[in-house]
Amino acid sequence: MIKIGVIGYGYWGPNVLRNFYSVHGAKVVACCDGNSKRLEKVREIYPDIKTVTDYKLITRDPSIDAVAVVTPVFTHFDIAKDAIENGKHVFLEKPMTSTSAQANELVALAKKANKIIMVDHTFLFTGAVKKIKEILDKGELGDLYFFDSVRINLGLFQHDINVVWDLAPHDLSVMNFLISKKPVSVCAIGAAHINKKVEDTAYLTINFEDNLIAHFHLNWLSPVKIRKTLISGSKKMLVWDDLSADEKIKIYDKGVDAETREGEYNLRMKYRSGDIWSPEVEGAEALKSEVAYFLDCISRNQVPFNDGQAGADVVRILEASDESIKNGGRRVEL
Amino acid sequence: MIKIGVIGYGYWGPNVLRNFYSVHGAKVVACCDGNSKRLEKVREIYPDIKTVTDYKLITRDPSIDAVAVVTPVFTHFDIAKDAIENGKHVFLEKPMTSTSAQANELVALAKKANKIIMVDHTFLFTGAVKKIKEILDKGELGDLYFFDSVRINLGLFQHDINVVWDLAPHDLSVMNFLISKKPVSVCAIGAAHINKKVEDTAYLTINFEDNLIAHFHLNWLSPVKIRKTLISGSKKMLVWDDLSADEKIKIYDKGVDAETREGEYNLRMKYRSGDIWSPEVEGAEALKSEVAYFLDCISRNQVPFNDGQAGADVVRILEASDESIKNGGRRVEL
Amino acid sequence: MIKIGVIGYGYWGPNVLRNFYSVHGAKVVACCDGNSKRLEKVREIYPDIKTVTDYKLITRDPSIDAVAVVTPVFTHFDIAKDAIENGKHVFLEKPMTSTSAQANELVALAKKANKIIMVDHTFLFTGAVKKIKEILDKGELGDLYFFDSVRINLGLFQHDINVVWDLAPHDLSVMNFLISKKPVSVCAIGAAHINKKVEDTAYLTINFEDNLIAHFHLNWLSPVKIRKTLISGSKKMLVWDDLSADEKIKIYDKGVDAETREGEYNLRMKYRSGDIWSPEVEGAEALKSEVAYFLDCISRNQVPFNDGQAGADVVRILEASDESIKNGGRRVEL
Amino acid sequence: MIKIGVIGYGYWGPNVLRNFYSVHGAKVVACCDGNSKRLEKVREIYPDIKTVTDYKLITRDPSIDAVAVVTPVFTHFDIAKDAIENGKHVFLEKPMTSTSAQANELVALAKKANKIIMVDHTFLFTGAVKKIKEILDKGELGDLYFFDSVRINLGLFQHDINVVWDLAPHDLSVMNFLISKKPVSVCAIGAAHINKKVEDTAYLTINFEDNLIAHFHLNWLSPVKIRKTLISGSKKMLVWDDLSADEKIKIYDKGVDAETREGEYNLRMKYRSGDIWSPEVEGAEALKSEVAYFLDCISRNQVPFNDGQAGADVVRILEASDESIKNGGRRVEL
Repeated sequence: MIKIGVIGYGYWGPNVLRNFYSVHGAKVVACCDGNSKRLEKVREIYPDIKTVTDYKLITRDPSIDAVAVVTPVFTHFDIAKDAIENGKHVFLEKPMTSTSAQANELVALAKKANKIIMVDHTFLFTGAVKKIKEILDKGELGDLYFFDSVRINLGLFQHDINVVWDLAPHDLSVMNFLISKKPVSVCAIGAAHINKKVEDTAYLTINFEDNLIAHFHLNWLSPVKIRKTLISGSKKMLVWDDLSADEKIKIYDKGVDAETREGEYNLRMKYRSGDIWSPEVEGAEALKSEVAYFLDCISRNQVPFNDGQAGADVVRILEASDESIKNGGRRVEL
Repeated sequence: MIKIGVIGYGYWGPNVLRNFYSVHGAKVVACCDGNSKRLEKVREIYPDIKTVTDYKLITRDPSIDAVAVVTPVFTHFDIAKDAIENGKHVFLEKPMTSTSAQANELVALAKKANKIIMVDHTFLFTGAVKKIKEILDKGELGDLYFFDSVRINLGLFQHDINVVWDLAPHDLSVMNFLISKKPVSVCAIGAAHINKKVEDTAYLTINFEDNLIAHFHLNWLSPVKIRKTLISGSKKMLVWDDLSADEKIKIYDKGVDAETREGEYNLRMKYRSGDIWSPEVEGAEALKSEVAYFLDCISRNQVPFNDGQAGADVVRILEASDESIKNGGRRVEL
Repeated sequence: MIKIGVIGYGYWGPNVLRNFYSVHGAKVVACCDGNSKRLEKVREIYPDIKTVTDYKLITRDPSIDAVAVVTPVFTHFDIAKDAIENGKHVFLEKPMTSTSAQANELVALAKKANKIIMVDHTFLFTGAVKKIKEILDKGELGDLYFFDSVRINLGLFQHDINVVWDLAPHDLSVMNFLISKKPVSVCAIGAAHINKKVEDTAYLTINFEDNLIAHFHLNWLSPVKIRKTLISGSKKMLVWDDLSADEKIKIYDKGVDAETREGEYNLRMKYRSGDIWSPEVEGAEALKSEVAYFLDCISRNQVPFNDGQAGADVVRILEASDESIKNGGRRVEL
Repeated sequence: MIKIGVIGYGYWGPNVLRNFYSVHGAKVVACCDGNSKRLEKVREIYPDIKTVTDYKLITRDPSIDAVAVVTPVFTHFDIAKDAIENGKHVFLEKPMTSTSAQANELVALAKKANKIIMVDHTFLFTGAVKKIKEILDKGELGDLYFFDSVRINLGLFQHDINVVWDLAPHDLSVMNFLISKKPVSVCAIGAAHINKKVEDTAYLTINFEDNLIAHFHLNWLSPVKIRKTLISGSKKMLVWDDLSADEKIKIYDKGVDAETREGEYNLRMKYRSGDIWSPEVEGAEALKSEVAYFLDCISRNQVPFNDGQAGADVVRILEASDESIKNGGRRVEL
């Protein structure tokens, strides 16, 4: 039985706690939050869980094996560091840290201490992303042309982080998971309309070593909610519409090929168009399977695919994005 | 009766000719194309129109008052210049020219010769754009936050121009028409996947003097066809979906306001959400009313709103976009 | 403080109990279910509620003021009768009873005992239906032409009732609520494909005294889920799409008028087409406000609009529908 | 070269004439219409076609091999009869005739004269219907449960026929084509709101010998345009949405099976849910291939599948539908 302490019971914490509470093989023994009203709620629902307001009562409790850190981003580093240094495995909310220096330090610490860091990139555990991964790994799309992601709505403004840090970790972690190539540079442009200190509208472009290009539209000021990703390849093309109830993924058997004929100046384009296929997508709660995977990695002393390094890779892009935005869209190498 | 010569009978030329042929107050007297098969087609449908293969037989025919130039972009300058110098009004296909130097020269020539140049930005004459203009001019959206345009599909590749020059003139002309502010800089990133000399995927960002930001996704390699523009403002938000049969425009009575309360560190956000309104949009053929407007401007010696300068403004952005793409997304001042 | 006993804790019971539990002014003191596993669940979540397996321990408990009956349809009559005869107000799941004789008897009993019966036609408390009622009551649609409802999906088969009894109470209660006219006859056709004793596909038509016509498509075997109602009138037309996230209701400013001109044999039709308007719809949980309304009616000794008579009106149509189905679609007078 | 005369140049006639004009192997030699303005239009576009106002100049012209009859329904019988009696093959607009007695008479006459009658059920020649036929013929859907068709919009009112006669021929011809079983009875209910003599809203139900049921919603007074058919079977289910640009057909790999376990009173339902597949659909003009098929049938002296009998089968249902409507929905045996 792995003993768990949950730190943070704000917006997402209740989901993390609930899943650790009900998963087989773990026992949540303590929960920490600075806000006593929230702790009262915890005691109401889970009378058997100890509640504390000082996280060190968790990170330094020798009876606890692993902690889940579900606090604001700027606190992640200190808490996670303290936890690792006290021999805990860490389940860490995304984005992993405020800087990549911090992320790298946590990765190094965990490695040295032989502890697991898992960054909560929940989308990687959805049926949709798992299915897309399967399709891409089989090479069904051919060579990838572009990855275009739109995640916009009239969103809840964050005070401490901009729209890129708030929304892009979802899409960046998915991109890194799906595409084995390394991104090499970032260009980002943002605008702050409501709170002049925090961008609410941003466009992010990522280049890879070849002509693969990725682009992200992130927005808290859109009249409509869109969560759509297009992945275009030389053989087929894919659309992932996360808001669709029944057809989250569609694979289009279409494309265009260039033919060069002798003596001709121009390429001839040959357009292909075929069936559309929408595979069934598993509907189970992603966080539930992620939490089970965390326990499994601990038990088998296995590095998770969404480990500290995966978290650090995302933070590096977010950091580069900030730098690019500050410099009016200048290209920042990764 | 204004006598018209049409130069170019390829993809779009037949529509231009047909509309000039049927509009009240004009008479198409001649049509030019280098391809004799196309001219045969013209003679079949319009036995009363003279067909020629040398455009100078039109630009220099003293009986002709105005010419419509519907040829490939790289030929626009020479033909239009010859036409103006020979005292013709010019209806010029978009994009106006291959460079802004050429566009500016045509503008100057036309001014000196007191001739009208109208650039065929057809979208400005659609019911949808006219309705949006009306809404924006009344200030219904409040201060504008962003203008986001997506025009993508599995498109017909052009050989001589990239996807920005092919598709963006539609959206840039609409942006300039709707928004009275001046764009100040352009960042663009593109990728060429099929024909390595011609970008088929591009993202264009335009900044204005204030925080208004415009963004354009242009793509010939998308599995799905999207033609959608979001315009977000401080009072209301608007979506223009040009592919919708019945609800091309929707106005969302929603938004977010920041409130500062004394002694509080963070802004409080107040979210508003209300009705959605989809105004009826006039369905007449845009080109028909544009052609009538061209004749009207000639008759009343009036400068059209889609004049040479409007065309040159679009070309300047396209040119800056090319420069930005070549320099990996570097910001180019307009 | 009104003391509540909840009878039945199957599919819908937990929602009813939860709402009575949290509403201001009521106290749930007991819960009955024949299944002891379910009662265990109740004790887990609500340790302060007494659990019993014999409903008479609730209906005959003098400390209880009102009971909620959330059991299979065929048990409604006996339980509700016992409750009323023991001086309880009754909140009764829909459909109210298995026959209209039973429904009428309950209505009479409640009247005599001066007790309230409220039939749980939850949809009447949704923001969408309330908004449509408001629009109809203002006469915005003009004279009503037809009411067309489709409620289909790959549905959970019921064993004891057919698809009409399962799904139509929603739509019939809405129809009766929205339209003040009396339905006069029913024609229904059904087919049973999976369980030969229970129709899974049915079409129901209702005629009114004038040419208003109502039609219902009810289906457990549809590949797609549709919950859509069209209401067409002489002035405007309305579509209610209950599955739409943001635009549940749309009002179409369109229609057709007949003009008779002297000396003409045929009517001339004049088609109107205008804006589409999608009013914002309140999103609160319908059952929550229904439960509050039940308490309010008790406190103020007021007859609810969804009273026993409203429930009996629906049962009468269901009963007539069964008779019509059995007779191959024969018209049954109401 | 088969010589064709076209009778009727109103709404649909121009399409029929254009297709016969351009198809290989036929020559349109004459066109008849009572309205001289329309004939002027014919002469303008097709100067080589003789125009007449008396159809007998076509039906009795010995140089003509076949006539296309594209006139109002009530005239079909007389014209077609005259044509057949004068040795012509007949391409006859749908619905074939005003009564099934007339239809049967034409069928008999044509048989005797060894002439072909083809009824213009154009939908049978669309890519969508051909693809569905292919799927059904392979048995992919298993046993059929129901065929549900909705064809509604704010439609052009007809003066001489009601909404059933106007719209249902499309769907009935498709049903008969796709489903090999014989319909056995019809129940129909209609309402007339605008022109009190002509139903504008109607619901038609058709029963087959087994539990297969077909249903049709036909409406000229709907705010929204819907053209959707659901076909549900024991193995798979299909949706045909004729208004979809890219996904006209979707096949759902879902269903429900009943299991009986020993000793259990109730059936256990097992729900299946799988991928959705949208096959590509051929986009060519249906009428073009129908017209070619007509010529082909004449040349090879072959009975078309959309022959007079197919037309008569549809008329019989329309006739039964009228009888049922007049009798308040009474079941009419076919």
